Amino acid sequence: MRIARIAHPEGMAFAIVEGGEPDGTGATLREIAGHPFGQPEFTGKSWPIEDVRLLAPILPSKVIAVGRNYADHVEEVFNKSAEHLPPTIFLKPPTAVIGPEAPIRIPEWATRVEFEGEMAIVIGRPCKDVNRNNWKDVVLGFTVVNDVSSRDLQFQDGQWSRAKGLDSFCPLGPWIETAVDSIDIDNQPILAHLTHEGKTETKQDSNSNQMIKSIPEIVEWVSSAFTLLPGDVICTGSPAGTAEMVPGDRIEVEIPGLGKLANPVQAYGK
Amino acid sequence: MRIARIAHPEGMAFAIVEGGEPDGTGATLREIAGHPFGQPEFTGKSWPIEDVRLLAPILPSKVIAVGRNYADHVEEVFNKSAEHLPPTIFLKPPTAVIGPEAPIRIPEWATRVEFEGEMAIVIGRPCKDVNRNNWKDVVLGFTVVNDVSSRDLQFQDGQWSRAKGLDSFCPLGPWIETAVDSIDIDNQPILAHLTHEGKTETKQDSNSNQMIKSIPEIVEWVSSAFTLLPGDVICTGSPAGTAEMVPGDRIEVEIPGLGKLANPVQAYGK
Repeated sequence: MRIARIAHPEGMAFAIVEGGEPDGTGATLREIAGHPFGQPEFTGKSWPIEDVRLLAPILPSKVIAVGRNYADHVEEVFNKSAEHLPPTIFLKPPTAVIGPEAPIRIPEWATRVEFEGEMAIVIGRPCKDVNRNNWKDVVLGFTVVNDVSSRDLQFQDGQWSRAKGLDSFCPLGPWIETAVDSIDIDNQPILAHLTHEGKTETKQDSNSNQMIKSIPEIVEWVSSAFTLLPGDVICTGSPAGTAEMVPGDRIEVEIPGLGKLANPVQAYGK
Repeated sequence: MRIARIAHPEGMAFAIVEGGEPDGTGATLREIAGHPFGQPEFTGKSWPIEDVRLLAPILPSKVIAVGRNYADHVEEVFNKSAEHLPPTIFLKPPTAVIGPEAPIRIPEWATRVEFEGEMAIVIGRPCKDVNRNNWKDVVLGFTVVNDVSSRDLQFQDGQWSRAKGLDSFCPLGPWIETAVDSIDIDNQPILAHLTHEGKTETKQDSNSNQMIKSIPEIVEWVSSAFTLLPGDVICTGSPAGTAEMVPGDRIEVEIPGLGKLANPVQAYGK
């Protein structure tokens, strides 16, 4: 099941994405009442996807991110091997979250801003100290995230939450895929296509099977530190291939089993 | 005006703390309707402070923290001068927030856990890109925070959000002091008293006049990065004197113009 959050002609709601192509073309959005945790209750209203706007599929109370979870990305950013720089945990603020097609807005002083295409876990129920074998009990589903990062701020600050937490630096979507058993989550291509001056290049082309800490391990690790609440998002780390984006560009992160997340890039305050 | 959040005999509410001693003894808690942003509307209910339990005075959507904002603390923790390690920004998760007298609970694997007594800013209205001269327009008031930190995790992770973000690692309170003009916020003693095996010692004894970045500068700096929402909390950094706490201890952070925030220390899961 694909759960979206939408702006429709009468307001905003969660909705189930039914039918259509894998990228959503031709799909119908069936509105559900209330929140998306638990059995959906349909209101009877529905719209063609072309008549609604997809929003970030969830408004998380916190966005936890795993850094340094792909060896090749550790080497490209830090010039060190992942053995010496193991995975770490940081936070992005909820105010950084935006939906598909919303602009990533870069302030002048946030230089060398790069995309990082990643798989994201969406938590489905309150939990703490989850055993890795029980991870499916607490996960609502998966979505795509772009962990936008100003490399210059990241190294200047030492702490990453500002460099990766500016308003609009957490595009999320297009929807939450809850069919955890029918897609092979440990073997999903992770792609990022950057369009610059009209030319599109695939910059990231990796696979979730390259994660250092696996999904079950991440759920166990993160939940040993923090109580997780329904809607909380865990970004699982970026593979290599990250590159700079500048205003005028367009970035699309694609995970075939989950969907495509595309956002234009603009200058902030212009 | 002092705004508290309380558990009272009939439920939970925000309330104004009236009368009594500076530490609250003998005060009356007058319940207000709804949220504390704007002119309070009294419900007519009130209780003596002894009949209620003070909760964290606000549930923030994010807790932003300034690190390395006192030169003496930079030297005691990092063995480097503040010139080489300027202030930085990190995030603590909302799930870390607890109120006065709630236990700080330390997991066995989070070693060398220290208190950090700090002044905290509570945001009063949605804002972005606030000029330092207008900081009072967006601040609801001030409270006391203990930025509890596992030093071992902090250095092991590099990123600080886990070491400083475990459940219960953000005691906050006892209330929000909104009289920004009548207390000298730039000249407040910051004290931390640790009780270990029945003996109380004052470990931190500093003053907010030692901040590297001042309150107006912090509001400008943080709001240039993140949209701030009502109830968001900014921890302004810890002066020197931080020290280890172990289960059985009691830690009290005192800022005379704001109040005292005391918490017992326990082992997690015991």
